[in-house]
Amino acid sequence: MKQFDHVSVVKKANIYFDGKVTSRTVIFPDGSQKTLGIMLPGEYEFGTAAAETMEILAGEMTVLLPGHTDWLTYRSGDSFQVPAESRFKLKVSVVADYCCSYDANK
Amino acid sequence: MKQFDHVSVVKKANIYFDGKVTSRTVIFPDGSQKTLGIMLPGEYEFGTAAAETMEILAGEMTVLLPGHTDWLTYRSGDSFQVPAESRFKLKVSVVADYCCSYDANK
Repeated sequence: MKQFDHVSVVKKANIYFDGKVTSRTVIFPDGSQKTLGIMLPGEYEFGTAAAETMEILAGEMTVLLPGHTDWLTYRSGDSFQVPAESRFKLKVSVVADYCCSYDANK
Repeated sequence: MKQFDHVSVVKKANIYFDGKVTSRTVIFPDGSQKTLGIMLPGEYEFGTAAAETMEILAGEMTVLLPGHTDWLTYRSGDSFQVPAESRFKLKVSVVADYCCSYDANK
């Protein structure tokens, strides 16, 4: 799926870490939301509310998921899941383009 | 207008200048396109194909438009137009969130 159709897009960006991480919110007809984002090289820590699925569209990121001791690297085409109400760490070495889906059921 | 409704969004980002300028393409029902983008601090030069209207959603940018000798600063809520088939320069001092509309008629 190269594009999302029949959606709404919030004009204003979500801006974190002085703009090194930014995203746009996409709202689907069923009310669910995804964000399309960019992470520039750097190290970041995020917290989740809902569970998230992160899909890497370009670039790569190395991730320390909650409860894990090993950092895992995800590249273009890979996905990983983050539990609700948790925190995870990311190291980005090349510009990463991602799509984050929020799970309403977890 | 806080969001664009009934649109398509291309998943992959447009990435320029090592990710310091990125945007997402939004396609409207009439086939027209806009991009929603972020510029991190830096100096940039862009060329246009179609004429463009740049609307600043957050932050600011100082712009040298084609044929001008003065740099002009545009802030959140401001817009400026760039002719088709031209080049313009930008200096960004704080993270800028923008919406670029492409004019099909010029």
